[in-house]
Amino acid sequence: MSDVLRFVEDNLGRFREELYDFLRIPSVSAKSEHDADTREAAEWFGQRLQEAGLTAVVHDTPGHPIVVGEWRGAGPDAPTVLIYGHYDVQPPEPLDLWDSPPFEPTERDGRIYARGSADDKGQLYMHVKALEAFHATGAELPINVVVLAEGEEEVGSPNLVPFVEARADELACDVVLISDTGMFAEGLPSLLFSLRGLAYFELHVHGANSDLHSGEYGGAVGNPGNAMSRIIASLHDDKGRIAIDGFYDDVVEWDAETRSQIAGLPHSDKSFAQDVGAPGLIGEDGYSALERLWIRPTCDVCGILCGYTGEGAKTVLPNHAMAKVSFRLVPDQHPDRIKELFEAHVAKVAPRGVTVEVRELHGGRPWKASPSGPAFEAAGEALAEAFGTEPVLMGGGGSIPIVVEFEEKLDATALLVGFSLPNCNLHAPNEWFPIENYEKGIGALARLYGKLGSLRG
Amino acid sequence: MSDVLRFVEDNLGRFREELYDFLRIPSVSAKSEHDADTREAAEWFGQRLQEAGLTAVVHDTPGHPIVVGEWRGAGPDAPTVLIYGHYDVQPPEPLDLWDSPPFEPTERDGRIYARGSADDKGQLYMHVKALEAFHATGAELPINVVVLAEGEEEVGSPNLVPFVEARADELACDVVLISDTGMFAEGLPSLLFSLRGLAYFELHVHGANSDLHSGEYGGAVGNPGNAMSRIIASLHDDKGRIAIDGFYDDVVEWDAETRSQIAGLPHSDKSFAQDVGAPGLIGEDGYSALERLWIRPTCDVCGILCGYTGEGAKTVLPNHAMAKVSFRLVPDQHPDRIKELFEAHVAKVAPRGVTVEVRELHGGRPWKASPSGPAFEAAGEALAEAFGTEPVLMGGGGSIPIVVEFEEKLDATALLVGFSLPNCNLHAPNEWFPIENYEKGIGALARLYGKLGSLRG
Repeated sequence: MSDVLRFVEDNLGRFREELYDFLRIPSVSAKSEHDADTREAAEWFGQRLQEAGLTAVVHDTPGHPIVVGEWRGAGPDAPTVLIYGHYDVQPPEPLDLWDSPPFEPTERDGRIYARGSADDKGQLYMHVKALEAFHATGAELPINVVVLAEGEEEVGSPNLVPFVEARADELACDVVLISDTGMFAEGLPSLLFSLRGLAYFELHVHGANSDLHSGEYGGAVGNPGNAMSRIIASLHDDKGRIAIDGFYDDVVEWDAETRSQIAGLPHSDKSFAQDVGAPGLIGEDGYSALERLWIRPTCDVCGILCGYTGEGAKTVLPNHAMAKVSFRLVPDQHPDRIKELFEAHVAKVAPRGVTVEVRELHGGRPWKASPSGPAFEAAGEALAEAFGTEPVLMGGGGSIPIVVEFEEKLDATALLVGFSLPNCNLHAPNEWFPIENYEKGIGALARLYGKLGSLRG
Repeated sequence: MSDVLRFVEDNLGRFREELYDFLRIPSVSAKSEHDADTREAAEWFGQRLQEAGLTAVVHDTPGHPIVVGEWRGAGPDAPTVLIYGHYDVQPPEPLDLWDSPPFEPTERDGRIYARGSADDKGQLYMHVKALEAFHATGAELPINVVVLAEGEEEVGSPNLVPFVEARADELACDVVLISDTGMFAEGLPSLLFSLRGLAYFELHVHGANSDLHSGEYGGAVGNPGNAMSRIIASLHDDKGRIAIDGFYDDVVEWDAETRSQIAGLPHSDKSFAQDVGAPGLIGEDGYSALERLWIRPTCDVCGILCGYTGEGAKTVLPNHAMAKVSFRLVPDQHPDRIKELFEAHVAKVAPRGVTVEVRELHGGRPWKASPSGPAFEAAGEALAEAFGTEPVLMGGGGSIPIVVEFEEKLDATALLVGFSLPNCNLHAPNEWFPIENYEKGIGALARLYGKLGSLRG
């Protein structure tokens, strides 16, 4: 292992440069104008896997490609670890809020600024470099490895589950290892015990055939902007709870031990709010901020567009309004059920004078781990050695819908070891990733591979 | 008068072609990118006034120019009529909903399709052509005429009142004649007894410093999109009334005679809704649709913009939301008072976790006429002769804020004689003006000028 770690140490500069090449490819999966870029990122990633000693295949799907790399050198009796990540990124808009171009990686203050640096290209590429260190030094890698990188995570992974189902034998593994989450705080390595699910809709409200004069028609013809606002406002009650009938039916209340563990983490509401410039925190009555983020469901509007939004005072009665409405779900909520409940709610509260339409954009199930067992312990040790401090257990507010699918389809344990930080601006302008974590993390992953060799022993 | 009317009849084709030149100038006052176009429209209009026998001056203002034309040939003892209109137009967006380009006038089915055809270039230009008919035929015009055309009506006329105040002597008149409104129905000439006022605001809701990941922060950090929706929803109660404290304090209840006159007009809620493709009508309990449009105040969102509105499912917690919120006012509401009430309401209902800001975009006072007296009678006769049927009295849902100012500043009677139709798509895509009304209306205005000569007798 010391050869491996020395190789990592000696090549950190090159590892960063290679990552920057990866980050320069604008693989925005949500926008069809970037389809060619997304494919280029897949091809580029496959070549890097080959150079790290794996065989790699770029598989076509009805959407963006899935890259699979394999190394079976540990033999049939050794455990197999499937490393999952994604090479697609969120749209970079609004562009004018970036201090440096989103697809031109820029180092400032020990940070790598670029779209995808934290979510997830940077973290995915750390695995490739840890694997390369074994390959280049000839050190013994005690596990078989399958790397699976998809290009549709940011649009709900529509083609991944069918792919995994069709190739369940080929992808069979003991552990699914994912680095697409964060550490609780700088210098504090972390292991995840939960992820929220997602149900994401577009809500359309239609009024007249065309926009109308707000004086000639206002007050008698329905206004989709006013109506949309009433519908969105109806989604929460005054206690910060989601006011959809049946919404909490399947929500699991967490055990006292987990809640007490959460309460023990070094967290301050005040600095949490200050870090993002928020004027105070909000949320569901009866839960702390971390609980609201990790173990409680939420509803956030991600966008609204209606009528005239340019300069000046256009007196128009709009004929259409659109809102992107997302729900984060917790065990045991299911996005299909949430869709039914949301549709019924919208139909119930829709004001007169307009028609409403709900379009499902994507959904994913929540995940809850049992934070124990040999894989969890191996990860804890590897992180402690690399970072010099014991890792903490934390929940995850975001969604990686494939995690629960992997566990079920492959009958494996998911292990989520991530290295971004809470203020890395994921999905926002000026996304960044700490260089220190990129570098220490590669070492931590190499150590983890070594420890997972004894998984079956 | 017969020479005048024959001249009009003989020149209708040319009158249309000239109007089309006027309509081709994209004089969008709300957008600074069109400043040069707006000035061009002013210069063009001034030249046409000169050709019609008036002296014309294009006056600079801090905003768009004001054009004043004068003809004092009737002598100091004759009445003076000030003709007011505007050469600026609403923004044409959304462009993709126009069947022909907004600034390329197109004739279809007896209609002139173009931005400004009805509001107000077409109607303003009818006066120029009626005046030209007297000038060209040498017929006696028994009134002095001042034509005042502004370029900021669609942005609240910020420079007109100071202009009128500064030149009250020069603009002194007996009647202010305005053609910027419509007829109740096709073939049914109309005289206006009211206009609504306007109070137009931009509401901004701010959250964190930048957009955030909706999973990492959703549920604990305030969402300006959700908050904006709650604020907008709070503006109405379940009876369709505006739920702002004190909002109705200054609203005048109209007399039974006017309400009975309104009830007697040939109107069907069903066809009114069908004409604009609205799925049914809405509005304040206790009032008919026409009353809701004419004698009751309303609140309409004209636009909302928040977060990500592009293709796909971006899971973002936006940090800003903007809504354009407009109120139509009725006597004796005042936009300054409404601003105070609106600001107080927004501050009161603003949810935690966000900050709110109200920006006033423009305001104008409502107007109520006494529908009697010699000017009203002259207009009634002129319309009856030109259209072959007695005109009806109607209210106006729109706003021409300058009307009440003219009456007060110039101590004159306002006379609103308009020729557009209810479904002319004012402020909307595919604005049009009926060719028949353009042609008959020029004759009606010429007749009206003749009759107003006896105003002081």
